[in-house]
Amino acid sequence: MTVTTSGALGLLKEIAGIGRDGATGGYNRFAFTVEDAALAEWFEAQCRSRGLDVVIDRCGNQWAWCGDPDRSIREGNGPGVVTGSHLDSVPDGGALDGPLGVASALAAVDLLREGGLTSRGLARPLGIVRFVDEEGARFGLACSGSRLVTGAAAPQKVLALKDAAGVTYADAMRSAGVRPEAAGHDREALARVGAFVELHVEQGRALATPEIDAPVGVATMIRPHGRWLVDLAGRADHAGTTLLVDRLDPMLDLARLVTTVRALAMSTGSVATVGKVDVRPNAVNAIPSHVSAWLDARADTAEQVRDVLAGLAEAGFTCIEESWTPSTHLDADLSGRVAASVAATLGKAPRLATGAGHDAGVLAQAGIPSAMIFVRNPTGASHTPAERAEDDDIDTGDRALAAVLADLVS
Amino acid sequence: MTVTTSGALGLLKEIAGIGRDGATGGYNRFAFTVEDAALAEWFEAQCRSRGLDVVIDRCGNQWAWCGDPDRSIREGNGPGVVTGSHLDSVPDGGALDGPLGVASALAAVDLLREGGLTSRGLARPLGIVRFVDEEGARFGLACSGSRLVTGAAAPQKVLALKDAAGVTYADAMRSAGVRPEAAGHDREALARVGAFVELHVEQGRALATPEIDAPVGVATMIRPHGRWLVDLAGRADHAGTTLLVDRLDPMLDLARLVTTVRALAMSTGSVATVGKVDVRPNAVNAIPSHVSAWLDARADTAEQVRDVLAGLAEAGFTCIEESWTPSTHLDADLSGRVAASVAATLGKAPRLATGAGHDAGVLAQAGIPSAMIFVRNPTGASHTPAERAEDDDIDTGDRALAAVLADLVS
Repeated sequence: MTVTTSGALGLLKEIAGIGRDGATGGYNRFAFTVEDAALAEWFEAQCRSRGLDVVIDRCGNQWAWCGDPDRSIREGNGPGVVTGSHLDSVPDGGALDGPLGVASALAAVDLLREGGLTSRGLARPLGIVRFVDEEGARFGLACSGSRLVTGAAAPQKVLALKDAAGVTYADAMRSAGVRPEAAGHDREALARVGAFVELHVEQGRALATPEIDAPVGVATMIRPHGRWLVDLAGRADHAGTTLLVDRLDPMLDLARLVTTVRALAMSTGSVATVGKVDVRPNAVNAIPSHVSAWLDARADTAEQVRDVLAGLAEAGFTCIEESWTPSTHLDADLSGRVAASVAATLGKAPRLATGAGHDAGVLAQAGIPSAMIFVRNPTGASHTPAERAEDDDIDTGDRALAAVLADLVS
Repeated sequence: MTVTTSGALGLLKEIAGIGRDGATGGYNRFAFTVEDAALAEWFEAQCRSRGLDVVIDRCGNQWAWCGDPDRSIREGNGPGVVTGSHLDSVPDGGALDGPLGVASALAAVDLLREGGLTSRGLARPLGIVRFVDEEGARFGLACSGSRLVTGAAAPQKVLALKDAAGVTYADAMRSAGVRPEAAGHDREALARVGAFVELHVEQGRALATPEIDAPVGVATMIRPHGRWLVDLAGRADHAGTTLLVDRLDPMLDLARLVTTVRALAMSTGSVATVGKVDVRPNAVNAIPSHVSAWLDARADTAEQVRDVLAGLAEAGFTCIEESWTPSTHLDADLSGRVAASVAATLGKAPRLATGAGHDAGVLAQAGIPSAMIFVRNPTGASHTPAERAEDDDIDTGDRALAAVLADLVS
């Protein structure tokens, strides 16, 4: 059974038109939209063309299996090895963040088959997963698909989230053909996963630095990170007639918040960002009645992030936690084995921490041995149309992932 | 011919439901929308029920006439006297800014008739005008209806303006039944206007101060004011993985802009506001690629506003002018006569300048003798659902306007 493939690069070209903004070249692929449905359909067709069975879990995540994990467990051979990532994007995001991990998973399966591996030759079943809504761009909660399926997020809380148009997560999910009534901790789906390896484009430029200079690296940990909402109340008034002394202008508080956040990030060694605001009524000639601002803060340790929040509280800002992910140490044994496979294939496998959250982190926190492979990003640009990776590095990522999977399933 | 009326108060109640936000109690009545059409229809019905002829000019403004201004001009009796205002609102605006001037105009006509004045008793025709799009909330250009009809704004520039959904002014106008091809300087419509008196709720609290304490005042001038766009370019990047030193975060520039604007307003004695921003992509976990901010600046003199802009240029900000209105001295003779009528009716008629732009200012700049009457606003709140006026003061405004018109048309 030989499948001719052009690798992840060729697979990514097939979906290059879905959700692409012609003006910026960036992608808008949000959970449970028509673009998302087109990507899900493409993924299913790709898996079926490779003879994989596609199962959708209670939360809408797609799992494609080569070999039967339930039978493997029953027969005492243990659960499967899964690789994959997500296909959704941030607003105006890049082509690789998410899709590279899915495309490389498919390409790695092809490489294994080209190398002569058949499903009967697998000691453990091999799966490819596509998680829904990793970025949380539409409903504000990152990794909602993996958080729901692992029970890390309560269904009643997630299903009630609303997008900018007021559509609930439950209704959006239903419109995508997934029953929200069944959404939640799916022990059956998780029991099939003995190990999870997620390949992802690097979201910084560590691999591209002269000191490291490697096409592929292996993650050590995901830094602690969280999101907070800061509500800044003001009093709407006419911008042309209200004396300065009579104003309660929340835009001034926003200015102070932004500068305070940057100062605290510098003093604590964290990264902290105000990337999203909502100004009401947002009219040129009206002093705003209200500004909502969102804080994203991450660091090497949870204590540093806590110091940022303590500084903001001291400066008079109330930060409402929307999500918090403590530092996640990926599985040491699995990561070591992954690194050994990569090093055997490429000569080296540098290890690095990441400041971005991932479904692999959510699975790790749910007790599933998880590891991550990063592919070099020459500029480190991420969450932007400028995100990229060299073609050669993408091919190298395919080969590295194939080597890792070959080791794990044999 | 006796019309029973409950005055402007009763008339405002009739339109209280149009474009009202149930949550905030504020109004969203934007140019050429269904809400705007409902208000236009109501205005026309009110005028027709009083036997007035309604004519729509080339720019969509409605003019209702008691008496025939063309005949009056032909017969050597000169053009008419017009009162009125606008019915559109800022986002989440109050019920009075605009509509009070239209409702009081209708109420004043009723009072004149109750007092025995008939159309044959008029020495000059009496008109009521309803200008479209005074606030400029939808397309960003304030007073577009009066600017177009007076030739102060070029049709090709106005018609190409787009709203947030990308709809052009021309298409919006056409959907409201007005031919954009004909929009522009309408000398025929303007020739009918010998004097214009606009009644408006005060947008500050000068009349409510103990030193002045009067239900109604008369304007001296409209302070110079303008709007500028400030584009702040950044570089989109991942909020969790991009080092602080590698960032080009335009939110920091926004913070500096907001604080610089406030400092310059204080040092120059101006009012200056950043009330509207547009952040791209506006995602929690993305450093923005771009922030657009709008500056509204006004002062007693154009020089003070120029000083604000010079200070911003010195601080490195490029401000693109979207509109500029120099100080507008309302007609001294007409305003004096209006003040005399108000004083004769109410005992006093304090004079005050205003920082808000008005259609009366646009007409004044086009050479049409114009005056303004302000009705007391107890808190000065404006461009907010909290805007209000006492019922008694609204009734007093009706009587003052009726007295002014009686003087001018007799």
